[in-house]
Amino acid sequence: LRKDRPEVVLCEGKSLDQIEGIIKLLGEKSKNVLATRASREVYEKIKNLYPTAKYYEQARIIIINEEKKIKNEKTILVITAGTSDIRVAEEAVVTAEAFGNKVDRLYDVGVAGLHRLLYNLDKLRQANVLIVVAGMEGALASVVGGLVNRPVIAVPTSVGYGTNFGGLTALLSMLNSCSDGIGVVNIDNGFGAASLAHQINSSS
Amino acid sequence: LRKDRPEVVLCEGKSLDQIEGIIKLLGEKSKNVLATRASREVYEKIKNLYPTAKYYEQARIIIINEEKKIKNEKTILVITAGTSDIRVAEEAVVTAEAFGNKVDRLYDVGVAGLHRLLYNLDKLRQANVLIVVAGMEGALASVVGGLVNRPVIAVPTSVGYGTNFGGLTALLSMLNSCSDGIGVVNIDNGFGAASLAHQINSSS
Amino acid sequence: LRKDRPEVVLCEGKSLDQIEGIIKLLGEKSKNVLATRASREVYEKIKNLYPTAKYYEQARIIIINEEKKIKNEKTILVITAGTSDIRVAEEAVVTAEAFGNKVDRLYDVGVAGLHRLLYNLDKLRQANVLIVVAGMEGALASVVGGLVNRPVIAVPTSVGYGTNFGGLTALLSMLNSCSDGIGVVNIDNGFGAASLAHQINSSS
Amino acid sequence: LRKDRPEVVLCEGKSLDQIEGIIKLLGEKSKNVLATRASREVYEKIKNLYPTAKYYEQARIIIINEEKKIKNEKTILVITAGTSDIRVAEEAVVTAEAFGNKVDRLYDVGVAGLHRLLYNLDKLRQANVLIVVAGMEGALASVVGGLVNRPVIAVPTSVGYGTNFGGLTALLSMLNSCSDGIGVVNIDNGFGAASLAHQINSSS
Amino acid sequence: LRKDRPEVVLCEGKSLDQIEGIIKLLGEKSKNVLATRASREVYEKIKNLYPTAKYYEQARIIIINEEKKIKNEKTILVITAGTSDIRVAEEAVVTAEAFGNKVDRLYDVGVAGLHRLLYNLDKLRQANVLIVVAGMEGALASVVGGLVNRPVIAVPTSVGYGTNFGGLTALLSMLNSCSDGIGVVNIDNGFGAASLAHQINSSS
Amino acid sequence: LRKDRPEVVLCEGKSLDQIEGIIKLLGEKSKNVLATRASREVYEKIKNLYPTAKYYEQARIIIINEEKKIKNEKTILVITAGTSDIRVAEEAVVTAEAFGNKVDRLYDVGVAGLHRLLYNLDKLRQANVLIVVAGMEGALASVVGGLVNRPVIAVPTSVGYGTNFGGLTALLSMLNSCSDGIGVVNIDNGFGAASLAHQINSSS
Amino acid sequence: LRKDRPEVVLCEGKSLDQIEGIIKLLGEKSKNVLATRASREVYEKIKNLYPTAKYYEQARIIIINEEKKIKNEKTILVITAGTSDIRVAEEAVVTAEAFGNKVDRLYDVGVAGLHRLLYNLDKLRQANVLIVVAGMEGALASVVGGLVNRPVIAVPTSVGYGTNFGGLTALLSMLNSCSDGIGVVNIDNGFGAASLAHQINSSS
Amino acid sequence: LRKDRPEVVLCEGKSLDQIEGIIKLLGEKSKNVLATRASREVYEKIKNLYPTAKYYEQARIIIINEEKKIKNEKTILVITAGTSDIRVAEEAVVTAEAFGNKVDRLYDVGVAGLHRLLYNLDKLRQANVLIVVAGMEGALASVVGGLVNRPVIAVPTSVGYGTNFGGLTALLSMLNSCSDGIGVVNIDNGFGAASLAHQINSSS
Ligand SMILES: Nc1ncnc2c1ncn2[C@@H]1O[C@H](COP(=O)(O)O)[C@@H](O)[C@H]1O
Ligand SMILES: Nc1ncnc2c1ncn2[C@@H]1O[C@H](COP(=O)(O)O)[C@@H](O)[C@H]1O
Ligand SMILES: Nc1ncnc2c1ncn2[C@@H]1O[C@H](COP(=O)(O)O)[C@@H](O)[C@H]1O
Ligand SMILES: Nc1ncnc2c1ncn2[C@@H]1O[C@H](COP(=O)(O)O)[C@@H](O)[C@H]1O
Ligand SMILES: [Mg+2]
Ligand SMILES: [Mg+2]
Ligand SMILES: [Mg+2]
Ligand SMILES: [Mg+2]
Ligand SMILES: [Mg+2]
Ligand SMILES: [Mg+2]
Ligand SMILES: [Mg+2]
Ligand SMILES: [Mg+2]
Repeated sequence: LRKDRPEVVLCEGKSLDQIEGIIKLLGEKSKNVLATRASREVYEKIKNLYPTAKYYEQARIIIINEEKKIKNEKTILVITAGTSDIRVAEEAVVTAEAFGNKVDRLYDVGVAGLHRLLYNLDKLRQANVLIVVAGMEGALASVVGGLVNRPVIAVPTSVGYGTNFGGLTALLSMLNSCSDGIGVVNIDNGFGAASLAHQINSSS
Repeated sequence: LRKDRPEVVLCEGKSLDQIEGIIKLLGEKSKNVLATRASREVYEKIKNLYPTAKYYEQARIIIINEEKKIKNEKTILVITAGTSDIRVAEEAVVTAEAFGNKVDRLYDVGVAGLHRLLYNLDKLRQANVLIVVAGMEGALASVVGGLVNRPVIAVPTSVGYGTNFGGLTALLSMLNSCSDGIGVVNIDNGFGAASLAHQINSSS
Repeated sequence: LRKDRPEVVLCEGKSLDQIEGIIKLLGEKSKNVLATRASREVYEKIKNLYPTAKYYEQARIIIINEEKKIKNEKTILVITAGTSDIRVAEEAVVTAEAFGNKVDRLYDVGVAGLHRLLYNLDKLRQANVLIVVAGMEGALASVVGGLVNRPVIAVPTSVGYGTNFGGLTALLSMLNSCSDGIGVVNIDNGFGAASLAHQINSSS
Repeated sequence: LRKDRPEVVLCEGKSLDQIEGIIKLLGEKSKNVLATRASREVYEKIKNLYPTAKYYEQARIIIINEEKKIKNEKTILVITAGTSDIRVAEEAVVTAEAFGNKVDRLYDVGVAGLHRLLYNLDKLRQANVLIVVAGMEGALASVVGGLVNRPVIAVPTSVGYGTNFGGLTALLSMLNSCSDGIGVVNIDNGFGAASLAHQINSSS
Repeated sequence: LRKDRPEVVLCEGKSLDQIEGIIKLLGEKSKNVLATRASREVYEKIKNLYPTAKYYEQARIIIINEEKKIKNEKTILVITAGTSDIRVAEEAVVTAEAFGNKVDRLYDVGVAGLHRLLYNLDKLRQANVLIVVAGMEGALASVVGGLVNRPVIAVPTSVGYGTNFGGLTALLSMLNSCSDGIGVVNIDNGFGAASLAHQINSSS
Repeated sequence: LRKDRPEVVLCEGKSLDQIEGIIKLLGEKSKNVLATRASREVYEKIKNLYPTAKYYEQARIIIINEEKKIKNEKTILVITAGTSDIRVAEEAVVTAEAFGNKVDRLYDVGVAGLHRLLYNLDKLRQANVLIVVAGMEGALASVVGGLVNRPVIAVPTSVGYGTNFGGLTALLSMLNSCSDGIGVVNIDNGFGAASLAHQINSSS
Repeated sequence: LRKDRPEVVLCEGKSLDQIEGIIKLLGEKSKNVLATRASREVYEKIKNLYPTAKYYEQARIIIINEEKKIKNEKTILVITAGTSDIRVAEEAVVTAEAFGNKVDRLYDVGVAGLHRLLYNLDKLRQANVLIVVAGMEGALASVVGGLVNRPVIAVPTSVGYGTNFGGLTALLSMLNSCSDGIGVVNIDNGFGAASLAHQINSSS
Repeated sequence: LRKDRPEVVLCEGKSLDQIEGIIKLLGEKSKNVLATRASREVYEKIKNLYPTAKYYEQARIIIINEEKKIKNEKTILVITAGTSDIRVAEEAVVTAEAFGNKVDRLYDVGVAGLHRLLYNLDKLRQANVLIVVAGMEGALASVVGGLVNRPVIAVPTSVGYGTNFGGLTALLSMLNSCSDGIGVVNIDNGFGAASLAHQINSSS
């Protein structure tokens, strides 16, 4: 089985040498190789080997041999509850785009001010897949799930403090949503959400 | 310090003899003595001693020497997300009324169908204190908190399964609400919510 | 927004009277109304009102006004690791079929005997969406995720004992899968998995 | 709905640029804009833009366009168990005052030395709302709750070590208080406590 | 090493045959053999073999060859917060007395009504060892610890609901007490508390 | 009530200014004032004010106006399982000695090499109170508890990794000991153990 | 790959029909087919089909076509801390014997009375593999691990109460053992321990 | 009892002086003394005393008086799921070799790409003992367990993020494996796995 998407290497937990070794193995032969969870330090090292490598700072993703091309007209909408969730959302955006998807953003529409979300109802209902990125109590996933008839991918973030327990509260909240049609990924896993959205979107 | 409310005995975890003993101590001298978490079996026993005792089945509360009297014109609004949360909501309603408050109900307005809640916006905004009773992911507390400028008391319920962990998810969600002005009580603690609402409401 | 699927009532945590009331509200006007988590006792009650109501014992689902009709040629494949996971898988199967999907089963192909799974590789790769139902350590989701390029919905089950913690281990395992393209739902939530699969499948 | 209080931005988890952007949006038009959980580093940046911005070091709050004005004669009393809880208490004090409330302090009256608390019984009973800030085992909330007939807002702090689990013990203790009339907020959430106290206090 | 106290068998988790076998081994040769956590059913069986065996119902303890004799004039004071804690307290009382200690009781003096406790200050200060039995938030241990200069043994009970987690909250609370001089035993472990108190008390 | 021991201030979580303030309040009037959990940095500051202050590095305790005097001939024996537990043990030793007790040490006698412990059986049985300090699985408390007839105070330490969870495993182990006569204190709480041992030891 | 041991079916979580179906599939062709976690009710059903089926009550195992034959002279020693652990130990014993191993028992030698264990040191040191079955704090595994140079398999049991958390404490204790050479299996998993011991024992 | 393996000192949690002291005690008299969890800083210190000491960087092990000698022809195969697990695997490899075993490596064969594992089936089946090192969801242990008839030792690693909880997910997954014949050690405990494998391997 050939994967229907570019190769990806997760940098977190690997030494600079290990990362470089893996990218070397993959980097020469393919387009849009992604290095996720890459610090700027990792990027500096990689840039020496691949001077055209591009770094998406907020998303913490390096793309080697970037090729921007939309292969699919259906939209993935990436939504955040707050400003602090944007870094995770951007991991999803950059990944989904690198996989050839059309992506739209709707940021900072958390449920504490419901009007901002309701004002964008059309945008919500035009998307083919929705990725909801939220920390704290993660209520946004339930509310969005109730407003659309399309698959919702919920990404809990580690945004919050105290009993947030590093994103656990948002995760539990999303798993127990009173709206159905929601699939959940690991805390802060923007990459995984994008990958699942891509699989859904590329369904013929 | 004299308490500004009727006496209450929590029946859960006490033997029939213990409950009877405590009520006997209090029952003869005061109005609206409450026995909370009382099974029908407890009620049958108490009725023998106090034939006028009244049993609120859903709320699982017995009232001895009931005296219906509203001492305060400000409204406490009790809201539930779903049908299964009603038993906890009724514990709050019956308690708050027995303490002399005016209580209103708004049931089954969970966020999976936001229109039901928005349709009742006026009701929400006319209340002096709001008690939000919700299980599963408890998102209703955050949404209500964002719609009103009055104190919200959030009551997580044990409604749900799996990672709901007997109400823990709803509790954590409420504690991490992105809306402020919310105080949380223990899981299924309708009584505690009513007592706090009563203290707030009776502020001169 | 009109939902693109039949109405559903979750029976767990509701009294017989509450369930009956809700079904009455919905049951007369629509096809394929589902009552999930319904015990046989609930079914006996409902059958009195709706004699044509059908009971799926393993799935614990009642269908009122059942109408069997496939609206969508893309297949949802429901897979289980073991025999004990079948009750949850059947909740997914019955739901997905009632929503108009074509569903296929592949049961008892857990990773302790990998050959059973590999033997069915073609079946895995022909599905449009895959639902993997597994308890214990839930490793099947990761293995299936690595074998296909289609969205995988992982349903942890409460099958197991000791440190399984009622399905928590399988859930955590699925959330941390080294394969990507996996969305997770709550423990034992066959219904939620089917609903998400339906949303994915009905993507034009 | 217009909020009945100044705007607030939570700095934790946001980049300096994000914080500056949000304050710019709000800062020019309103009085008493609060930036909470602000480090001194954030303050130095903001001061460049708003030279009159004031920094409350212990509370870690910046106030832009500060205007000191008591709009409400009812007192909010902020109590701490120990010296280490003061930083959280000050977050509550500065917030509540910025919202126009009259605030009083009673610090270091933990239950290990009960006489200090009992000595201040009058002060306790003159307050309209009480905020109890305590770490370790958080017993002070229960004791205060038993001594007054006014609403008590309990703020668990992360003060302690070992099985304190970053404030979890104090939180659980407060949620399970044998005194009623207590609402709980997230660990270290002095701001949330002040906001709820403000809503209660501003009840007409 | 000869133990300085009678033999004890814990009945919980053992079959009737196993319990009988163990008691037979010990019962004929010694005084005051204790069978703890014994249901009435176990007692009925044992009584057939040892007709003089005595059953303490609340404590759920059987004593074989009971011999009442105080070997030590120093008092162990057993205190409870509520009525529901009495069964655990009685396990401690019956054990400590069977071990030859002088025991005194002070029940239902929880911190929600501090006056009941303060009223008994003399009793508290005359004891040589204090056992504090409390569920819910377990605050009583801290308060008692602050009032006396003698060793306090804290016994958390499983009394409570929701986030009480079967006594975990009381346990954590007691372990994090701001008063020092407190040793904690397992949840509901009245026996263990009595045994430790006995060791302390029998210090020459 | 006058405390029967010197004053103690816990430095952890307090600012240098706060610590200095508290010590100033106490330091001039009393002997053996303890500042626990004091870093070398705190000590340097205190030494400026009280040049005779003594610093116990491993114990992380500062003593102001130290006065070495044994007021009690009964021995407290402090035992550790491993080398890494010594810092916690020393907190207990220094505290207990400052409170006027006679203290003996028995270090590095963990159960992986039982002979080291058994070799010291006499020492174990001559002590009046035993403090067992152990991390990892904390089995030493159970073994010691089974070998002596005197009160055992168990101090779990945060020594270990992985599922040790910062000492939680040792704590749970000690609370569930199959030996009785054991009281447990918070993780790494050498001070609390010493304080309890002192109360026990000073029993007339 | 042919398994080197008889087939096994886990009955827990399966319906009577499912169990019967699986055994039928396996039962006719092989010796020593095991049905584990089988209640007496399951046994009664199976006996109708296979009248020679044998039921080991304590172990809760049914053996179909039992054939007693020792294929391996090396001994597996199964040890328990207490009487309540025997049911789990017997699951291991019956399984290991059915797999063709020579098994020896050493029951009730928990660390509260170390002499019983030390008395059997020879037996411990003659075994090729040791299975240690213990609940409560599970300290026996560490002690045995320190006394022998052979592989130790630790089986935590759910024996205990309160903070035992259904065997979690014993499990954590065993995973953090200060003795090395210990492998741990799931709580109450006597079968898994026996299977691992069998694999070790059958090493040529 | 003489240990059948070289002495080992765990450096984590010990001061440089403590480590040096222990090694001095052991180092002069024996071969292959191991210092595990040793940082490069520790190594620099030790090298001054023992200039021939060797440092295994990835494994973080120092060996004093190294002597390479295979005492046993049976192979221990060490397998990892990913690149980030290698540091733990190397702790196992270096330890097992120092104990005289023949060790083979099979790295980066996680279940997301099953072909890599299946391609090495012969290698798997030729080993006498297998150590499986995996983070994230730890599914590799189950898959390997199903493919071989030899003992499998599972080592969960702390590789992962979010709900991985520092390796807890992998641990739980391994404990609940649907394959039998698996023993589990603590998170990241490569040393413990090697020690157990050594005990198994040295069985005569
Ligand atoms: N940011 C990320 N979060 C979670 N999983 C990731 C991430 N980036 C990559 N992965 C997954 O990790 C795999 C690569 O892992 P590795 O072989 O360790 O680099 C990819 O195929 C993805 O499935
Ligand atoms: N349903 C309830 N949930 C929680 N707390 C309650 C409940 N009912 C009564 N209480 C509290 O428990 C106290 C009585 O406890 P007790 O003395 O055990 O009957 C009352 O004063 C209330 O504060
Ligand atoms: N190292 C310590 N660990 C735990 N509790 C301590 C410690 N040192 C002091 N304490 C307790 O904390 C109290 C002083 O707390 P504080 O008023 O915050 O300084 C003392 O009376 C002791 O009960
Ligand atoms: N890396 C390691 N992980 C876990 N346990 C270890 C490790 N290294 C050594 N040990 C164990 O710790 C013991 C030594 O502990 P200590 O006396 O504290 O040095 C050894 O006998 C081993 O059983
Ligand atoms: Mg939807
Ligand atoms: Mg609001
Ligand atoms: Mg895939
Ligand atoms: Mg009160
Ligand atoms: Mg005291
Ligand atoms: Mg003892
Ligand atoms: Mg050993
Ligand atoms: Mg196998």
